[in-house]
Amino acid sequence: MSEAAPAHTLAHPILTDDYATEWMGLSVLELGDGTATVSTTLRREMLNGFGIAHGGMLFAIADSAFALACNPHTPEEGHSTITVAAGVDVNFLAPAHEGELITAVAARRAHAGRSGLYDIQVFASPADTPHTAEAPGRLVVEFRGRSRTIPQR
Amino acid sequence: MSEAAPAHTLAHPILTDDYATEWMGLSVLELGDGTATVSTTLRREMLNGFGIAHGGMLFAIADSAFALACNPHTPEEGHSTITVAAGVDVNFLAPAHEGELITAVAARRAHAGRSGLYDIQVFASPADTPHTAEAPGRLVVEFRGRSRTIPQR
Amino acid sequence: MSEAAPAHTLAHPILTDDYATEWMGLSVLELGDGTATVSTTLRREMLNGFGIAHGGMLFAIADSAFALACNPHTPEEGHSTITVAAGVDVNFLAPAHEGELITAVAARRAHAGRSGLYDIQVFASPADTPHTAEAPGRLVVEFRGRSRTIPQR
Amino acid sequence: MSEAAPAHTLAHPILTDDYATEWMGLSVLELGDGTATVSTTLRREMLNGFGIAHGGMLFAIADSAFALACNPHTPEEGHSTITVAAGVDVNFLAPAHEGELITAVAARRAHAGRSGLYDIQVFASPADTPHTAEAPGRLVVEFRGRSRTIPQR
Repeated sequence: MSEAAPAHTLAHPILTDDYATEWMGLSVLELGDGTATVSTTLRREMLNGFGIAHGGMLFAIADSAFALACNPHTPEEGHSTITVAAGVDVNFLAPAHEGELITAVAARRAHAGRSGLYDIQVFASPADTPHTAEAPGRLVVEFRGRSRTIPQR
Repeated sequence: MSEAAPAHTLAHPILTDDYATEWMGLSVLELGDGTATVSTTLRREMLNGFGIAHGGMLFAIADSAFALACNPHTPEEGHSTITVAAGVDVNFLAPAHEGELITAVAARRAHAGRSGLYDIQVFASPADTPHTAEAPGRLVVEFRGRSRTIPQR
Repeated sequence: MSEAAPAHTLAHPILTDDYATEWMGLSVLELGDGTATVSTTLRREMLNGFGIAHGGMLFAIADSAFALACNPHTPEEGHSTITVAAGVDVNFLAPAHEGELITAVAARRAHAGRSGLYDIQVFASPADTPHTAEAPGRLVVEFRGRSRTIPQR
Repeated sequence: MSEAAPAHTLAHPILTDDYATEWMGLSVLELGDGTATVSTTLRREMLNGFGIAHGGMLFAIADSAFALACNPHTPEEGHSTITVAAGVDVNFLAPAHEGELITAVAARRAHAGRSGLYDIQVFASPADTPHTAEAPGRLVVEFRGRSRTIPQR
């Protein structure tokens, strides 16, 4: 299926050994200064007992986009901090269905010292939609993430 | 491994065909009027690139406990509504590690009309901890869920 | 003082007998379909013991903008519902000081059935800034409000 | 009126020159390690155009209880930090009415490094209820506050 094999996925240092993001099958479509766009196809293991996307799975897709937007995607020497999620306010607006293309678009909204605020919007569109950063479909989740930059262990 | 094969797991109508909860390997330890406790072992596919639990996976475990607490666990005839997550405020307090036992404890906090407010606390404890509702370990996530009861399609 | 006596303030049905908004001295600068902009000068009674704006007062200014954006500003006959705040996620990003001009800009972000999601941004700028909808100053609060439309009692 | 003149109010260092808390007429009924209880009578200037308590005013009462619980109430020498609200998730559960006694009860829920998580519950009860920490009435607001400890300027 074309949606499970996108033409390209971008590299990011934090994706090494990120087994959860790998399991979700995320393609990285865009990376910038405080921005990221990812997409995947909603699989059966991502559904709940009501036959729609499990909220935790939509959250997890958004959370990966959030982490990619928070952390620098270019190699840095002597890089001694990481940025993690301190918390999130998430609103589930509409259901998503098996086989749909899920796209999460993250953008930094505010930043002060070691704290940041990011908005991640999650969209769903029919299964045959090509994996691109454009036309992400109908809005299903609004996720507002709070980041903290901490020393790397 | 004893932690992957708990002595028992309780039945709940919404678990039928809940493929996400199944994938997470959740055991249902307790169910009551507005309460639920679940547990699982943190697997490799639940880790992010920092080598700790992916926030989305901890969220998903809590979200399943939330859904179990929101919806009646006893069979009801002519049951025509379902209760879903409208939104969540989640705070990530401490990391959790591969192999640890994760326990999510959900309890209703307030309720008015078709809206409810639930607190779900997620705990982590060492891998050899038995799956029980007692002594759930250190607190890693505070999840406050907002529910809405809607007509069943 | 020019900032306490703006040239104009717009009318809105919900402002009748809104004693709290009156006490805050809010000027209504803009009203649209799902949008509103208000401003006021930060007075002494709006300060906390740290000598900066009390979080509750900044919240209250944003909350009034939210209510104005949620409810229709044009007269409606047989109008039988009102829209109220069900909840809010608010982030305090920077302090605001006595005498500063505070501007709150509300805009609808999503809407489904009787539920809505609004973003209200609160800005602070020096005391001699004119009350206009433009150039609102530095961002001090991000307020995301969840609305519910309910029958009027 | 007995509700406007409670028998006692406790002292706390951050209340000096806290003009907002003074304006709200808050009585401090209890102070402990990470806890505080305050009360006041809902006045006309705290009402919105729907004739019920303005959400911002209920928020402000809770926010003052939060600040009292976050900061030490015993004098400390060489005390060089203050704790402020970084953000809040608030849920408005029921309306409150003019003349009612409003009580806000704050308690620390979690704490790690310079970050804390506090729950503040706001209750309303009829006007002739005595100002005490017991029997606070019906639950009208659930407020979950995120604190940050920062150097004092």
